[in-house]
Amino acid sequence: MKKNSAIILLSGGQDSTTCLFWAKEKFKKTEAISFDYGQRHRIELQSAEKIARLAGAKHHIINIKEYGYIKNSALTDKSIAVGKKDKINKDLPSTFIPGRNILFLTVAAALAYTKKIHDIVIGVSQVDYSGYPDCRQEFIKSMERSLSLGMEYKIKIHTPLIKKTKKQTVELAEKLDILKYLRYTHTCYSGKRPGCGRCPACILRAKGFKEAGIKDPAVI
Amino acid sequence: MKKNSAIILLSGGQDSTTCLFWAKEKFKKTEAISFDYGQRHRIELQSAEKIARLAGAKHHIINIKEYGYIKNSALTDKSIAVGKKDKINKDLPSTFIPGRNILFLTVAAALAYTKKIHDIVIGVSQVDYSGYPDCRQEFIKSMERSLSLGMEYKIKIHTPLIKKTKKQTVELAEKLDILKYLRYTHTCYSGKRPGCGRCPACILRAKGFKEAGIKDPAVI
Repeated sequence: MKKNSAIILLSGGQDSTTCLFWAKEKFKKTEAISFDYGQRHRIELQSAEKIARLAGAKHHIINIKEYGYIKNSALTDKSIAVGKKDKINKDLPSTFIPGRNILFLTVAAALAYTKKIHDIVIGVSQVDYSGYPDCRQEFIKSMERSLSLGMEYKIKIHTPLIKKTKKQTVELAEKLDILKYLRYTHTCYSGKRPGCGRCPACILRAKGFKEAGIKDPAVI
Repeated sequence: MKKNSAIILLSGGQDSTTCLFWAKEKFKKTEAISFDYGQRHRIELQSAEKIARLAGAKHHIINIKEYGYIKNSALTDKSIAVGKKDKINKDLPSTFIPGRNILFLTVAAALAYTKKIHDIVIGVSQVDYSGYPDCRQEFIKSMERSLSLGMEYKIKIHTPLIKKTKKQTVELAEKLDILKYLRYTHTCYSGKRPGCGRCPACILRAKGFKEAGIKDPAVI
């Protein structure tokens, strides 16, 4: 039996799109939440909008551009660590605030609270981004507890991809019969569609499809 | 020996002001962070600015007005729980997002990370606000862990008032010799200075000073 409702963090990429359709199988109702942090490539939010529409999910876009203040602090500080971290983070400029999933989950949980929703879905994987601390199971479990305690309201964070490689995520998409929707997802660092094929995000995506033996529908 | 640096969450009220000066005794350098969430009474942020200046602390004001989107969701939902919670929350309109300290601590921690600061100070008390989940020790400890895990960066959250009544907080202020600064703090729900004397915040403040046998410098 399907559970009531869930909120899915939707970046407009392949992973979060797969999570949204995964959630559609599990929950009666799905709502998507995206973040406008002044992305260089508007195509990301356009992809998210398109995909939410295809999934029939209500789409919330939360503006968090003002956090640029903290980004500027990072620039001022010339902290090497910040730059380093964000090189492995496909969605954010290299100077964006650290721990973005902490922020995203906090806002998603606040939205969930106001809608009496208890389930949040996030497409993190500790396989492909094992170096990225806010994609790890241990963090997710701790955050689930912090959110539940801080709002005195049970929050469950679902991470269907946490132990999946890109190959396995592509296989899940095939199983969910959503390969046709993956052509609308956005992955490329350079904001190109079809992707440039050379940036780390394009390379990782291509590797996943190749290993799964499936043609990427976004590649013409 | 004083530790390096700390970031103090500063609302401009009595508790966070006391925390800022408490931190000045413990740390070599202090920076204050305040949040602009479209307060009805600008006097709150003005108080915070004035107090940060008196303390010689760099002051960061982060704009989080856009979270109004979530506030509106709460209004649409007519959730009784949301309204109820915020009645015991002196700083926010009754429709503001739940779990505000989760958000505030997350942003403070991101700022701390960019400045290579590991210590955050927040003026929560589980004595006077025992019903408020994000003011409790258990939540603070969990959040400390989530932030440290999520950023792979040690964050320590200090809560000097966590077990203090308002009376004891007034006594701490006297010990720190900062009663003279408390006249600039803002407490009143109605945005009045001196306070209206009738709202729950004014009543709690007056009780604290009365029990400590000290005259409130903000009352003329």
